[in-house]
Amino acid sequence: MDLFETIKKRHSYRGCFKDISVPREDLEKIVRAGLDAPSGKNAQTTQFVIVDEAGIVSEIARMHTGNKAMQQAKAFIACIVDKNPDAVYEDFSFQVEDCAAAVENMFLAITALGYASVWIDGWLRIENHAAIIGGMLNVPDTKCIRVLLPVGIPAEQYKPPEKKKFTQRVWFNRYSRA
Amino acid sequence: MDLFETIKKRHSYRGCFKDISVPREDLEKIVRAGLDAPSGKNAQTTQFVIVDEAGIVSEIARMHTGNKAMQQAKAFIACIVDKNPDAVYEDFSFQVEDCAAAVENMFLAITALGYASVWIDGWLRIENHAAIIGGMLNVPDTKCIRVLLPVGIPAEQYKPPEKKKFTQRVWFNRYSRA
Repeated sequence: MDLFETIKKRHSYRGCFKDISVPREDLEKIVRAGLDAPSGKNAQTTQFVIVDEAGIVSEIARMHTGNKAMQQAKAFIACIVDKNPDAVYEDFSFQVEDCAAAVENMFLAITALGYASVWIDGWLRIENHAAIIGGMLNVPDTKCIRVLLPVGIPAEQYKPPEKKKFTQRVWFNRYSRA
Repeated sequence: MDLFETIKKRHSYRGCFKDISVPREDLEKIVRAGLDAPSGKNAQTTQFVIVDEAGIVSEIARMHTGNKAMQQAKAFIACIVDKNPDAVYEDFSFQVEDCAAAVENMFLAITALGYASVWIDGWLRIENHAAIIGGMLNVPDTKCIRVLLPVGIPAEQYKPPEKKKFTQRVWFNRYSRA
């Protein structure tokens, strides 16, 4: 699929998934898009656990109460970062940016392959969710799951969210509040 | 350009640019890809100043000493976030993630349109660079330039960086150090 078409089509999907599994070949292709994302000082800090074992998938799915896409996911991609990241330039680590760039590449890949997902982040940080899922996936104590992507074939129509206008967010040469 | 081809082709470019300007139409198309990126709670927090005025472009270019792409940029895209972001979910703000996802979309758009760039972040945080450039662009004191993308047509051959193997960063169902 064309890049610009994919970018336009990508959206957060919280609806039901069809009862069709996601082949490993596609999951690998999605995660390879994440591996190809840029990272600060090429440190390639984000790691990934692809979850497609039915028992673990349903155990994670049962934890989420408000989101059909999480509850009916056919697979998950868990994105793992260090809890205390090393600095890679001056005093700075870029693990959050590295992870977000990888997630965006994967989200576009998910879209291009006909699947849908939603970027799960805040939910992982409450009620110990990241640590509980980390335990299921043998994630070491020094690391944590920063983002989780449910994957499946969308079964519902997508309702686009409200978007601000170009002129509310973009200016030429000088910032303007107007 | 196909999504997967674009993702493979995208790379950090620090070489010389051809002496050809970037049309506004292309700069707008690139930034629209950034606007289409996901954001936590759809808050659309990242703002953008497109810099294509020769005087400002050369003033920014002169500040960077180690990077030909910055010194010879034909345009810049400045990505702006709040210094003290509001929480959008529980106590969390996702402005760093929002900005990174927008940058990655724009970086892919830059690649697909035949331009090149490099993700400038750490350099902005040292020696007051973000504030100095923010001053040139009238960025309010409550906000800061988090990422800067130089844009131009690459004039040099790209040498790919070393990449870790798939098996060093990806596992199925259970994390493994092996």
